[in-house]
Amino acid sequence: MIFLDAAATTPVRREVLEAMWPYLTGEFGNPSSHHNLGEAAANALSGARAAVAKALGCRPGEITFTSGGTEADNLAVKGIALARRAADPALNRVVISAIEHPAVEESALYLQRVHGFEVDVVPVDRNGVVTVEALRAALSPETALVSIMYANNEIGTVQPVRQLAEVAAEHGVPFHTDAVQAAGWLPIGVKELGVDALSISGHKLGAPKGSGVLYAKGRLRLEPLVHGGGQERGRRSGTENVAGAVALATAMTLAHAGQSGLAGRVTELRDAFIRAVLEAVPGAVLTGHPSQRLPSVASFCFPGTSGESVLLELERLGVVCSSGSACAAGSDAPSPVLLALGIEPEVAHTAVRFSFDSTVTSAELDQAAEAVAAAVGSVQGLGRR
Amino acid sequence: MIFLDAAATTPVRREVLEAMWPYLTGEFGNPSSHHNLGEAAANALSGARAAVAKALGCRPGEITFTSGGTEADNLAVKGIALARRAADPALNRVVISAIEHPAVEESALYLQRVHGFEVDVVPVDRNGVVTVEALRAALSPETALVSIMYANNEIGTVQPVRQLAEVAAEHGVPFHTDAVQAAGWLPIGVKELGVDALSISGHKLGAPKGSGVLYAKGRLRLEPLVHGGGQERGRRSGTENVAGAVALATAMTLAHAGQSGLAGRVTELRDAFIRAVLEAVPGAVLTGHPSQRLPSVASFCFPGTSGESVLLELERLGVVCSSGSACAAGSDAPSPVLLALGIEPEVAHTAVRFSFDSTVTSAELDQAAEAVAAAVGSVQGLGRR
Repeated sequence: MIFLDAAATTPVRREVLEAMWPYLTGEFGNPSSHHNLGEAAANALSGARAAVAKALGCRPGEITFTSGGTEADNLAVKGIALARRAADPALNRVVISAIEHPAVEESALYLQRVHGFEVDVVPVDRNGVVTVEALRAALSPETALVSIMYANNEIGTVQPVRQLAEVAAEHGVPFHTDAVQAAGWLPIGVKELGVDALSISGHKLGAPKGSGVLYAKGRLRLEPLVHGGGQERGRRSGTENVAGAVALATAMTLAHAGQSGLAGRVTELRDAFIRAVLEAVPGAVLTGHPSQRLPSVASFCFPGTSGESVLLELERLGVVCSSGSACAAGSDAPSPVLLALGIEPEVAHTAVRFSFDSTVTSAELDQAAEAVAAAVGSVQGLGRR
Repeated sequence: MIFLDAAATTPVRREVLEAMWPYLTGEFGNPSSHHNLGEAAANALSGARAAVAKALGCRPGEITFTSGGTEADNLAVKGIALARRAADPALNRVVISAIEHPAVEESALYLQRVHGFEVDVVPVDRNGVVTVEALRAALSPETALVSIMYANNEIGTVQPVRQLAEVAAEHGVPFHTDAVQAAGWLPIGVKELGVDALSISGHKLGAPKGSGVLYAKGRLRLEPLVHGGGQERGRRSGTENVAGAVALATAMTLAHAGQSGLAGRVTELRDAFIRAVLEAVPGAVLTGHPSQRLPSVASFCFPGTSGESVLLELERLGVVCSSGSACAAGSDAPSPVLLALGIEPEVAHTAVRFSFDSTVTSAELDQAAEAVAAAVGSVQGLGRR
């Protein structure tokens, strides 16, 4: 099997399993307990927090461990918007892009539906890029928060986050970015990016499902999602998932160390794969930006097919990939991300995403490109009969 | 070391580690993915849901996996109250007891602070019991939800949940119970209890930290805490923690199978321990109900000492326990739970809680009771010098 669905999830790395194992076994203390067992757990959590802070270039106190990327996005979008409006009732709008992950989009819609916020959606160009001009046009004196993802999960387009964050900063508006797909592939130093908040998911990076992180800058106030015992400096109550935090910290440290060489190597493989597919499959269209895209994502539409049929055929041929976001798999509606690029609904239905992990090889991608050509040909042939 | 702080957290059981291991290694699929790897994960999740439903005597569709007990409590209290008020704006009050865990109490206070609800707090008697009469007096036509814990984490008192739930039902008000401490020790069949919602935490039951469950009855509507891809039937978005769900289901199944014999055995050990401590330590006071209490919790005040000093001395003597809730450890304020029983603040400061897991032995508890007498004597001696 050639697994080309790493954007959906990744296996837990061996080093990560080894690092978390003690906290699933002998070192099982509750970090809030005041005996030795509890203190060992608290020390592990504190070490994990420091490691995550180092990878992000921030202070440990700016890190909140969450149960995943979706929770981190929810905490950022709702938490910042609600806290800002509590301080200044005029701040009742949030700005998001047209291609946000549902974790951000639905959080914004919750603010609209339950808390009376207005949501301003910034359009993207045909490559999925939010321009500085488009963001500027969406800002208003009532904007409480801007949330624009670092890299898109379906089409891989990377946003000019630094420039977008600068625009928000000029207007005094906090800028959050969902870096769930970007982390591990792109630089995530929060100072260099200029962001005020940034979300990461463990299971996209070789840590287990159920682990995530929100970076929130210095004194940025957050209304918590989860209230209770006051863990995580009151930002996220509940007994901390110590093993998950240690796992995520280990995965981020490994990704951070290996990233620069890796991204270059995989970018070359990606481009070769894209060329091979576009040559072998007549009518195939690359979706997303041709170059400003994740090293790990090659996404296409294959007009005249159905994405789901191509996937089934590919799986039969030993290549596992997806039609887009796993979070939307099973939905019959065409991808809102592709529609936002101006792609027609009947073409959006033919989307297939290939996403790579760090171990992907040239031989695998050559074989995959051949399988794609065969699968598309086979599905088109069926359609013609 | 004699570990008598099982109410704070428990080690992961070997059977649980074995059951979850495949989902941390080879079976790493995202349950939302439509290929074989994803479907295997979805099947595991579905099996875990069915097992949890079986232990609770409900339907699998009534189970929502969460990141822990605190999140489950937050989802129940906020989710039910907000959804009910959205359907009927007159429903703007919630009823909780005076001794709820902070996860419930702070959720209610959030509803008050951010959403304009009123919180009605039902008092407890000197044993920590909420009476049917007290609950009835707190209900009003505006009550959206009642949330009263099954068993208290600090004093072990078990509430007459079935009778309390009946009172709520007479008034047409949904009844939620935090069963985080009760699960594993007391019957948790939701039909027999008559509850509409019930929270469970994995790490109190031999599953890892970061796993939890909310049971919510049939068509009870919930406003989610975490919005996004619509996992868990839209009640809790985010890629599911498959390993955590499998772990929790395994732990609940084991607890359910072993519970009846276990509770009887541990109750006897508890009562012998309570007698031994009360005999050996002059002035010691049992807190909570003398008999209607968790098999696993013996809690005392030792007037004339400081709870923290007794704990330190006990740890030196090889006995690990706590001053009360781990969630409040480190706070200098006396326990609100003990104050609610009418205990004076200076006495509440002397609280020590011993909580047992299923493996506790008579010999351990004999040794612990001797250590308690020695530790209290030593601390009182220091105080006199």
